[in-house]
Amino acid sequence: MTNPVLVEVLRGGHVESRHSGALAIVDADGGLVCALGDIARPIFPRSAVKALQALPLVESGAAERWRLSDAELALACASHSGEPEHVATAAGVLSRLGLDVNALECGTHWPTREPVLRGMIARGEQATPLHNNCSGKHSGFVCVACQMALASGREPAEFARGYIGADHPVMREVTAAMSGMTGVDLEQAPRATDGCSIPTYGIPLRGLALGFARLGSGQGLAPVRAAAARRLRQAAAEQPFMVAGSQRFDTLVMQALGERLFCKIGAEGVYCAALPELGLGLALKIDDGGVRAAEAAMAAAAEALLQLDEAQARLLAGYSDLLMKNWNGIEVGGVRASAELRAALSASR
Amino acid sequence: MTNPVLVEVLRGGHVESRHSGALAIVDADGGLVCALGDIARPIFPRSAVKALQALPLVESGAAERWRLSDAELALACASHSGEPEHVATAAGVLSRLGLDVNALECGTHWPTREPVLRGMIARGEQATPLHNNCSGKHSGFVCVACQMALASGREPAEFARGYIGADHPVMREVTAAMSGMTGVDLEQAPRATDGCSIPTYGIPLRGLALGFARLGSGQGLAPVRAAAARRLRQAAAEQPFMVAGSQRFDTLVMQALGERLFCKIGAEGVYCAALPELGLGLALKIDDGGVRAAEAAMAAAAEALLQLDEAQARLLAGYSDLLMKNWNGIEVGGVRASAELRAALSASR
Repeated sequence: MTNPVLVEVLRGGHVESRHSGALAIVDADGGLVCALGDIARPIFPRSAVKALQALPLVESGAAERWRLSDAELALACASHSGEPEHVATAAGVLSRLGLDVNALECGTHWPTREPVLRGMIARGEQATPLHNNCSGKHSGFVCVACQMALASGREPAEFARGYIGADHPVMREVTAAMSGMTGVDLEQAPRATDGCSIPTYGIPLRGLALGFARLGSGQGLAPVRAAAARRLRQAAAEQPFMVAGSQRFDTLVMQALGERLFCKIGAEGVYCAALPELGLGLALKIDDGGVRAAEAAMAAAAEALLQLDEAQARLLAGYSDLLMKNWNGIEVGGVRASAELRAALSASR
Repeated sequence: MTNPVLVEVLRGGHVESRHSGALAIVDADGGLVCALGDIARPIFPRSAVKALQALPLVESGAAERWRLSDAELALACASHSGEPEHVATAAGVLSRLGLDVNALECGTHWPTREPVLRGMIARGEQATPLHNNCSGKHSGFVCVACQMALASGREPAEFARGYIGADHPVMREVTAAMSGMTGVDLEQAPRATDGCSIPTYGIPLRGLALGFARLGSGQGLAPVRAAAARRLRQAAAEQPFMVAGSQRFDTLVMQALGERLFCKIGAEGVYCAALPELGLGLALKIDDGGVRAAEAAMAAAAEALLQLDEAQARLLAGYSDLLMKNWNGIEVGGVRASAELRAALSASR
């Protein structure tokens, strides 16, 4: 099946490049509200499902035991830019567990936020696993591990070791939460290793959209899970900076829309989102993995589905109909949601 | 027309992302040797045609007048990484013209080579237009302008000003060279502005491939042009570092293959190449603009068309069947030329 073009890249008024992809919007009963392209093929959701992976952190009682703040819970759902606040927040969680950066198994990479990176280089500093965009999620996993260890009388640090493995009790809980939310049996699903070394499972866009419809509405969830979902969404809405960072789509859009939209990007062109007021969930994947296209498509979806004020509309249009300038500041083209995507989204309103 | 998948991105043995595109290989008479996808639609070749754009630099006598070295001519065909040698070489050309960085109209960006960028930041240095990946090409344009000015008794610096404009005598020469080489009337072609502010014209892949077949073989070209083409190819083969930079595909491949392959990447997933020993030219465009896919497809083409020794084969396989590791150094997947691309290339041998 060939997926439709969701996003076009223009230069001088001509289409220079094209991004095809697939998109599903469903309600909390799994009813299809919008479908474009192949939404049945399993795709790796990557970091777009961090909020689902963070459910055990709340459900297990770990968040309550260590009194995790909104910022800390939002960071558990984040692909952050490695800014000082992100790093300090992840470090703070570990320190309350009596642990430090050595407990993290996500690997090290430099902050993605340019000015932060430049400052570190200028000061001769080195990156650590705390700068990894997944350090908040991993701190959350370590937290769950400590909670499990204490419940069973084990030594927390020792119990946590290897938490990234698919068969570790922490990861089994995480996988069970994703399976329950999406309605997909992940035992049978394609499996691969994510950038931060935890497993990633192939899930159809339709299942991912259902998971986010449930995350946003709580519908069909056990009370403990519905409460955990609400807690995480509220934390992200209160602390959207923690979910991504300065000048990042997810942060800017959640700052503007609050609890009306929870959205999260994943590597290789994936987006997942919950729209609680509509009881809808959304999942999309750009075939080629392009971030610019994933953001443009996500923005077009939010524009089509939500009532927006002028500032909110302008913010989203800055992504769904993005102007590109060259090194001399000359307008050379843009990135825009395709007419086919816009039409399908309009029809689903 | 839907283009075929040329490159697949794998994770854990599963296809995670796909890059579709089109590719043309033609001989110097324009005969099609290989065609995949839509090779008739005009595409913007961007920086992939810098060697064609450098022809007037040699043909005009400018290269001879200012005794441009192989390094300087190779840099005129380059999208370089802004390394010290690139910057010094561009500055050297301008200085022989009695000019400096202020003559460049390409705009400023930071070096793309990470360690160079980091060193500059650590030392508190600022980027200049000499660091722009197009500074060699632009130095060449300024050189042509000075040659034209001297031939007509004008003041060189004043004559050069505005050389990036489509109607400036320099750019008219550049456009005429591209038109002559590709056999496409660019007066009628789609036009847009490139990253470095010169015009870019929409040219079908088939025409681009013809231009590079002629660049490589000299066939069908006037003697002055054939000599200029040979001079530029030889310069690139002698100084492949100048065409790109450390750890860059074009540099590594031309270091390994010398005059057997001239290849040049362009923005938005374009590649053009000349294979002189076969009398062939190649042009490809990845629909979504992906660099990883353009490199993988170009490598697969070189593998299929050229007899390679073991080291050359290993180098190219490192791009056409690239292994990806995550932040912990764990092998997570790869990027590979599709079976359809491999089959079409094999059939064209």
